[in-house]
Amino acid sequence: MDGMPFQAELMQASPANAENQVTLANWRIAPFNRWAFSHVSEIVPSAIIAHDPARVTPLPANHVNLGGVGYRTASGQNGTVNNMLADTFTDGFLVMRQGRILTEHYAAALAANRPHIVFSVSKSITGSLAGLLVENGQLDPDAPVIQYLPEAKNSAYGDATVRHVLDMTVAIDFTEDYLDPDGDFLRYRKASGWNPVDNPATAGDLRSFLSSIRRGTGGHGHTFHYVSPNSDMLGWLIERAAGRKLADILSEGIWQPIGAEMPAYVTVDRLGAARTAGGINATLRDLGRFGEMMRNHGTTGGKTVLPRKWVDDILKNGDATAWARGDMATFIPGGKYRSKWYIVDQAREAFCAVGIHGQWIYIDRKAEMVAVKVSSQPLPVDEAMDKHILAAFRAIAAELA
Amino acid sequence: MDGMPFQAELMQASPANAENQVTLANWRIAPFNRWAFSHVSEIVPSAIIAHDPARVTPLPANHVNLGGVGYRTASGQNGTVNNMLADTFTDGFLVMRQGRILTEHYAAALAANRPHIVFSVSKSITGSLAGLLVENGQLDPDAPVIQYLPEAKNSAYGDATVRHVLDMTVAIDFTEDYLDPDGDFLRYRKASGWNPVDNPATAGDLRSFLSSIRRGTGGHGHTFHYVSPNSDMLGWLIERAAGRKLADILSEGIWQPIGAEMPAYVTVDRLGAARTAGGINATLRDLGRFGEMMRNHGTTGGKTVLPRKWVDDILKNGDATAWARGDMATFIPGGKYRSKWYIVDQAREAFCAVGIHGQWIYIDRKAEMVAVKVSSQPLPVDEAMDKHILAAFRAIAAELA
Repeated sequence: MDGMPFQAELMQASPANAENQVTLANWRIAPFNRWAFSHVSEIVPSAIIAHDPARVTPLPANHVNLGGVGYRTASGQNGTVNNMLADTFTDGFLVMRQGRILTEHYAAALAANRPHIVFSVSKSITGSLAGLLVENGQLDPDAPVIQYLPEAKNSAYGDATVRHVLDMTVAIDFTEDYLDPDGDFLRYRKASGWNPVDNPATAGDLRSFLSSIRRGTGGHGHTFHYVSPNSDMLGWLIERAAGRKLADILSEGIWQPIGAEMPAYVTVDRLGAARTAGGINATLRDLGRFGEMMRNHGTTGGKTVLPRKWVDDILKNGDATAWARGDMATFIPGGKYRSKWYIVDQAREAFCAVGIHGQWIYIDRKAEMVAVKVSSQPLPVDEAMDKHILAAFRAIAAELA
Repeated sequence: MDGMPFQAELMQASPANAENQVTLANWRIAPFNRWAFSHVSEIVPSAIIAHDPARVTPLPANHVNLGGVGYRTASGQNGTVNNMLADTFTDGFLVMRQGRILTEHYAAALAANRPHIVFSVSKSITGSLAGLLVENGQLDPDAPVIQYLPEAKNSAYGDATVRHVLDMTVAIDFTEDYLDPDGDFLRYRKASGWNPVDNPATAGDLRSFLSSIRRGTGGHGHTFHYVSPNSDMLGWLIERAAGRKLADILSEGIWQPIGAEMPAYVTVDRLGAARTAGGINATLRDLGRFGEMMRNHGTTGGKTVLPRKWVDDILKNGDATAWARGDMATFIPGGKYRSKWYIVDQAREAFCAVGIHGQWIYIDRKAEMVAVKVSSQPLPVDEAMDKHILAAFRAIAAELA
C-alpha cells in the first residue's frame, strides 16, 4: 500500500495536457483526485460557509514529533505514524492536544489556506448542526420526516422519523456502491452535480432523487444501514425546519462561533441543494477547531456553540445492537453510530467522523486529543488503510494519555 | 430609474418555487441577479483566491454620513448620494479616505463576509497583476502575444502585442453585445461556463474560443475597442508566463499582500480557465483594500505590493487619441484607458474600474479617496445610472478634498 508520488503537473499548465487535466468526469479518480480534493469548488458549484474574520480562535502550537509512534493493527501488522502517513495518500494531518497543535503537515496540492473535501465527515458536521435546531425547537428528532417534508411521503422516508435519518436506521432500498458504473449511486451523483450528465435540461436534482428512493424491507430503527442519501435528507430537513439555506445556518451556527479562519464550502446541485452527505470542504485547522469544539462538549473557549445535551447524547445513546446487525460492524467491532458520528471506544470517550478516500476527525477525550487527516486515497473504501489509520490514532492517544 | 425592492424569498425555500429559483439559465437576469451576484460560486464553478488569515490589514472606521452629498450630472440632473444608492440597485457601498472607512453599507443579499461578482472590475485587477510579472521579467508588454501563446497564431491576437491586449486596442472581429441571444457573446459565455449548454460533452472551452476569434480590419494600437475576451487573453498570458494557475498567482501576488480578510474567487470553465474578464468575486472591504493599494502607488501599509512604476504608468501613459476614437468616448469624455483601468481625470489622478450591472472601484488621489460600489442593476449597461454614479463619486471627492 505504498503511496504514489504526487503528480505535481496536475492542472498547472494552461491548458493541461490530457494526463494532467482534471474534470467533472475524472475528479474522484486517481491520480486526478490528488489535485481535485483540494480544488472541489473549481469542479462542482459550491456554497460558501462564511467564517467571521473578526472572530478567529487562535490555535497555539507546541510541536511534538509523533512520527515515530508505533502501532500494531488488530490483524497484527506493525507500523509507525510516519509510515501510515506516507502510505495512505495523506494531504493534511493535524494532531491537537488540549487545543494546542502538536503536529501540522501538508502534502500534495494542499496548504493551510486551502479547503479539502471531507466527504462523509460532512455527515457528522451536519448531524452536529442538527442539535442547534433541536435545542431551539425547530426540529424534533422523534417527529416523522414528513412533518417537515411532506413531499417525501411516497419514499423510504414516508414512515421514518428524523432519528432514523440521524442514526442511519432507515429501512431503505438503496445500494451504497461507490464504484457501480450505472446503479443507484451513479444516479445519485448525477442528481448531485457530482458527475457529468448527458442533457442538463432534463437532468434530475438532489431533492427529487431523495424523494424517489423506495422503502426497503423490515422496520426502521432495527439495523444500521449506511446510505449517504440519509444525510442529504438530514440537510434538507434542517433547511426546511429553519426556512433558510444550509450554508448560512452552518456559517452562523458553527463556522463563525468556533472561530474558523477560512470559509468552508458545500457543493450544491443545479437547484442549490447542499450535498450534506459528502460535499463539505474545509481547511485542516478549521476541521481541528470543529473537532476541538466537539471534544469540549460543544464549547469553544468556554462559550457554548452546540447544546451540551446534544453532543453528550452522541456518546451515550447510540444503539449497539443496531450497529452489530449492520453492514459496518467489522469496521469498528463493538461500536455504535449516533447522530452521524462513530463511537469507537465508550470508556475513552473516543469517537470519530470518517469519509471515503481517507478523511478523518478522531477525538479521544481521555487523551484530550483531536486528530484530523485528509487524504486522496485511490479507492473510496480501503479497509487495509482504515485499519492502519485507526491503529495509529489509538497509538497516538495512548502516547498522549 | 427607481430601484425595485429586493425579493427576499429568492432561493430561501428548499426547493424555491419557480419565481424564486436562481439557475445557470437566469442568474444574470433581474430579479434573479439580485441574489445571484452575491452567490456566484453556487452557479458557476470557481477557483479560490486565498487570503492569509495571519496577515489581515485592519480597516479603521471613522463614520461620516455622506448620504446628503448633492451632485449634478453632466446632462444637468440633480441628485444626492442617498438617491443614487437607492436608485441604482446597490448591494454594497464603501467609501474610504486615507485608508479609513467613512461609509460602509450592505443591502439585498450581500453582507460583509460575502463576495460579490465585480464583472469587468476583474479586468483591472488582472491588469494590475500583470505588473508583477512584468517587474520580474516573466512578461514583456511589448512582446507579441504568440511569444507566450503560439496557439493564438491564427486568431486576432496573431500579430498583436501584450500591450494591445492590456489597452484594448486589438483590431478584432468581436461584438460586445451583452443582450444578443445568439451571437459572439453567447458563444463566449457558453465557452466560459456562464450559460447552459445543450451538450456538455461537445461544449467548447474558454481558451479554444479565444484562439478562434478572427482579426478585424485596421491596425492594432489605433482605436480603443472594448471586447471582454482581450482580458481573458491577459489572464491566459499571465498563467502561461508564470506557469501556474491564475488564482494562485493572484492570491500570492495581491490578495495575501494587501491583507484581504476573505478569499476572493474567479469563475473557471470546464478545463479550469479563469474568466479574468469578468468572473472575479470579492467582499466589499477587500475591494476597498485593493483600491487603497492602487491609490498608494502599489503599496499596503508602506510595503510594496505592485511595482510603483507599473501603477504610475496607468495614469501617465494612456492613449487619449485611441480613447477618443473608441466606442466609449462619451462615457468618459477626455478619458483614457491603460492596463485595464479608466483614467477619469488626469489632474486629480482620478481613475476607476467599472463592471456591468453597476460595479465600481473609484479612486481620487487628490481627495485621498477610494469608493467601491457593487450592484445588481437589471441591465448590463445603463448609461443613465452610470452618469449618476460618476457624478456622485466626483461630488464625494469634492466634499472630501
